[in-house]
Amino acid sequence: MTVARRHVLVIGMGAGDPEHLTLAAVAALGRTDVFLVLDKGPEKDSLVRARRDILDRHAKADHRLVGIRDPERRRDVADTPAYHAAVRVWRERRTDAYERAVRDELAPGECGAVLVWGDPALYDGTIDILDDVAARGGVDFDYEVIPGISSVSALAARHRTTLTQVGRPLHITPGRYFTEELADLTGSGGDIAVMLDAHQAFTRLPGDDMWIYWGAYVGTPDEILVSGRLSDVADRIVALRAEARARHGWIMDTYLLRPCRDDPAEEPPGA
Amino acid sequence: MTVARRHVLVIGMGAGDPEHLTLAAVAALGRTDVFLVLDKGPEKDSLVRARRDILDRHAKADHRLVGIRDPERRRDVADTPAYHAAVRVWRERRTDAYERAVRDELAPGECGAVLVWGDPALYDGTIDILDDVAARGGVDFDYEVIPGISSVSALAARHRTTLTQVGRPLHITPGRYFTEELADLTGSGGDIAVMLDAHQAFTRLPGDDMWIYWGAYVGTPDEILVSGRLSDVADRIVALRAEARARHGWIMDTYLLRPCRDDPAEEPPGA
Repeated sequence: MTVARRHVLVIGMGAGDPEHLTLAAVAALGRTDVFLVLDKGPEKDSLVRARRDILDRHAKADHRLVGIRDPERRRDVADTPAYHAAVRVWRERRTDAYERAVRDELAPGECGAVLVWGDPALYDGTIDILDDVAARGGVDFDYEVIPGISSVSALAARHRTTLTQVGRPLHITPGRYFTEELADLTGSGGDIAVMLDAHQAFTRLPGDDMWIYWGAYVGTPDEILVSGRLSDVADRIVALRAEARARHGWIMDTYLLRPCRDDPAEEPPGA
Repeated sequence: MTVARRHVLVIGMGAGDPEHLTLAAVAALGRTDVFLVLDKGPEKDSLVRARRDILDRHAKADHRLVGIRDPERRRDVADTPAYHAAVRVWRERRTDAYERAVRDELAPGECGAVLVWGDPALYDGTIDILDDVAARGGVDFDYEVIPGISSVSALAARHRTTLTQVGRPLHITPGRYFTEELADLTGSGGDIAVMLDAHQAFTRLPGDDMWIYWGAYVGTPDEILVSGRLSDVADRIVALRAEARARHGWIMDTYLLRPCRDDPAEEPPGA
């Protein structure tokens, strides 16, 4: 007799616009028995609402929601030798939590799902965690990834511009590492997309040879878009960002930096 | 009296899996009167078939298909001083062709669409062309971009891996510029996604410290996936690629390169 396996779906939901769900994601939502939701403490209201709207529209009526408690992470050891050990411990505990959820909340043959904003391949830990759970061998399951529209892709579409210039590379980087990487990256003449930048690294760029395409809450009713020569619009972005963050209690923004061309009269396309 | 404007949609269709269409793309297909199809000469049968299947399923019954002739491009001047002038002339003629199509094939108030495989923001010229047409001011229209699942995103999902490591950048580059860029890119320790590589640049990488995730025809019934240490699998990829190309008459492949970690026992996740 074959025992049915547990199946876990990692579903990319797009960056905020519910119309950016793919047909594959809609089908995946519709065959999910149990949604595993990482509980990171009080969540942004509008994200909870957006997710609920998506489930109301696409999930089957008798789905179950199971919270996974995000383990505490020691923040007091950042920038000390204990940092890596603390991250390792935190990862282990998170793997424990997912392993328990897959084993105890899913019956064999049932289908669970983890919903990920954007694309699960860009700066999201879910795939690594499921790899870790599978490597332990403590619970028999397989899993599948449904790609999603990333926030950089949504940003470019809303600005009606490209992420790449002809023949040039695109660099995607987290804001935290942006400054130290910058010298290398700009040398290539490629575009730079910055994600997860809490510290507005773009304000620390020298010179006047960059174009910026910035967006917050892209694809949602709260969307804000600004583009222009960085030196012209940086202050406005900083002010808009602070105001929006205060009003919503959180902000999710992304931007694309494009080196200006040699000919100053020729502005970037889409500008 | 207001005159209705022409409206043009640039629709990202995903990298080949018809289930990767977004709900926004499906809605856009359903409100298109005229599909503008760039005629690049004899097209790959399976791409024509895939597009026809998508239109049969999602376009309205009375849609029209209009071919746009891709202007001849002088190939004999590559690597000569005349190259840039030849590219400029070719771009002008392509802009002419799109301008004529938008003006003559779309009535005011009608909706036209250009279908783009993958994401229109990554290495596709449609947005730049429409910018050029709009900048000329010869025809009144507005346009809108619907993002799509890119081939790199589809590749990562099928390999159940990420495109980014924690805190590391991702570089996306066309194969043609891959070798000269490589030294800079690998220095950052980030992953490198290579698109449009006709010359298998991965075979020219020195050393033994890269993992490759390769895929061809990703998301279609002809999909082939290979992953492993580059030095172990490069020959197999070259052979599979040649065989598939001969069988289909064309190939569309993409790959991700990931620097191996310092600890040789620790293999990349998803491997």
